[in-house]
Amino acid sequence: MKKHTHIALILAFVGGTSTAWSSEPIQPISPVKEINLAQVELGKKLYFDPRLSKSGFISCNSCHNLSMGGTDNLKTSIGHNWHQGPINAPTVLNSSLNLAQFWDGRAADLKEQAGGPIANPGEMAFTHTLALDVLASIPAYVTEFKQVFGNADINIDQVTQAIAEFEKTLVTPNSRFDQWLLGNKDAITADELAGYNLFKESGCSGCHNGAAVGGNSYQKMGLVEPYKANSPAEGRVAVTGDEADRFKFKVPTLRNVELTYPYFHDGEAETLTEAVNIMGRVQLGKKFTKAENAKIVAFLKTLTGDQPSFQLPILPPSTDRTPQPKPFE
Amino acid sequence: MKKHTHIALILAFVGGTSTAWSSEPIQPISPVKEINLAQVELGKKLYFDPRLSKSGFISCNSCHNLSMGGTDNLKTSIGHNWHQGPINAPTVLNSSLNLAQFWDGRAADLKEQAGGPIANPGEMAFTHTLALDVLASIPAYVTEFKQVFGNADINIDQVTQAIAEFEKTLVTPNSRFDQWLLGNKDAITADELAGYNLFKESGCSGCHNGAAVGGNSYQKMGLVEPYKANSPAEGRVAVTGDEADRFKFKVPTLRNVELTYPYFHDGEAETLTEAVNIMGRVQLGKKFTKAENAKIVAFLKTLTGDQPSFQLPILPPSTDRTPQPKPFE
Repeated sequence: MKKHTHIALILAFVGGTSTAWSSEPIQPISPVKEINLAQVELGKKLYFDPRLSKSGFISCNSCHNLSMGGTDNLKTSIGHNWHQGPINAPTVLNSSLNLAQFWDGRAADLKEQAGGPIANPGEMAFTHTLALDVLASIPAYVTEFKQVFGNADINIDQVTQAIAEFEKTLVTPNSRFDQWLLGNKDAITADELAGYNLFKESGCSGCHNGAAVGGNSYQKMGLVEPYKANSPAEGRVAVTGDEADRFKFKVPTLRNVELTYPYFHDGEAETLTEAVNIMGRVQLGKKFTKAENAKIVAFLKTLTGDQPSFQLPILPPSTDRTPQPKPFE
Repeated sequence: MKKHTHIALILAFVGGTSTAWSSEPIQPISPVKEINLAQVELGKKLYFDPRLSKSGFISCNSCHNLSMGGTDNLKTSIGHNWHQGPINAPTVLNSSLNLAQFWDGRAADLKEQAGGPIANPGEMAFTHTLALDVLASIPAYVTEFKQVFGNADINIDQVTQAIAEFEKTLVTPNSRFDQWLLGNKDAITADELAGYNLFKESGCSGCHNGAAVGGNSYQKMGLVEPYKANSPAEGRVAVTGDEADRFKFKVPTLRNVELTYPYFHDGEAETLTEAVNIMGRVQLGKKFTKAENAKIVAFLKTLTGDQPSFQLPILPPSTDRTPQPKPFE
């Protein structure tokens, strides 16, 4: 039945006929399709495995916590030896929809991203080689990698591929806003709809659009008015070397934004109210009234979708041959 | 069918008739009974919620990781600001069977234990009052506490009660050894059975007995030969003030011991082989041969039971009123 509706909508869209959402700047999140389930199950374990860090304490899930909107809900993250990270951890939810990964887009995709934190001295502080030594010492992992990838040896390409495949499953369909887009006019309130209209009319949807409501372009933080930042992050110039890219960051997704506080690349906005005010001012040259702000915030909260739901993975134990974690060295 | 067998065994036991395990020093782990499911579901969220720590980064699950045998698999734990803990984190699995909690038994039960790490400056570094402020600012928690406990206000007694009730569910029945105890003679190999017999004959089961294979007495570490420790932990004397209790620790459970490395209160034994050798020497005055040691280790690995299996909890989001975490202060 659902499938049928879906096909009908696609046909309508292809045919150019106006449907519930074909004329909107935001499209519904699609459930996961065409996934390698064996890679997903392996990647889920790796995502939760702190043995990919030098300390044996930090996993992907430490800073991209799937109990908390795929973030750590901290201004900037805590890394190895309690290192204070330079930037806010972006949510892993729906990150497969991003045009590139990291705030400055320095990784082309999730697979490339996944290798970064493992080897970052201020994050997991390990090396790819040492992480592979750990995995290769654990028979259950060796068997599972062999089953999934067919090779005799575990390599970093497989590790990041499996993590990325798991991350592709972390989409959040079925938000109230998506229900509305798909035709259920009662799914959002009049105030929330008014907020959405304000969001469009004010120009927010100029950058926050598409299925992820963002994630598909780089934009300068402080377009109309300079953004005063204490953060050392300089944006996409660090990748391109082009001064025009200074303070350009990937536009973050607004999906599940109710869960992914605090906001901006520096985490300086603690609340959605604050974030909407600042965005209005520095990006659009607008001062929203309190009532307007409240409506936009109400709309933003309709973007919270079904959170990924799965059994907590049980990790295979280390063996006598497994290199020991070194948390205090 | 299974229920029927169970009843039959109980009847046999009550009647004094010898059953598969009535004459053994180890009893099977029972599945959870008589649990308050609403408290369990609330407690599960609290167990995974890092907002009970000052940093917003450390939860119960950080050091008692349910993906890793209910431990952190570190020699000693990492606390707030990367503080190096003084002692090895004991497993939360089957901890409801312990005669008391912590290595020195300073908490009478799980409920009393649960409040400790939250307020310990070297662990979660928070206060009970601040933790309650956080919870009270989150409407979904307020509603759930009201549903579960009926009171208008959240108090620490309810927080620790819910966490303890969740922890009571963390039992691990159905290990191969328990299957053997319950009559399936093929559940363990001849070598594993030989290891069990050695375990009994050598005196290990003098302390490691009962359903938890430990956890039911305090014993001096270094009974026959002094145990050389670098650890500051002085044992139960810290609780009783009685010099006779110096270096007396709660005998740890050996359930899931394959998963709960490294071993001893100081985490100094990295492998089961090493732990069995040291225990033999300092507790029993015995030097196991390599073959004997291997058999005992093989037996110990039959004590790995079904790990608790549940959906990763999704935590209710903070609100504008929620006090901010302070990881770097």
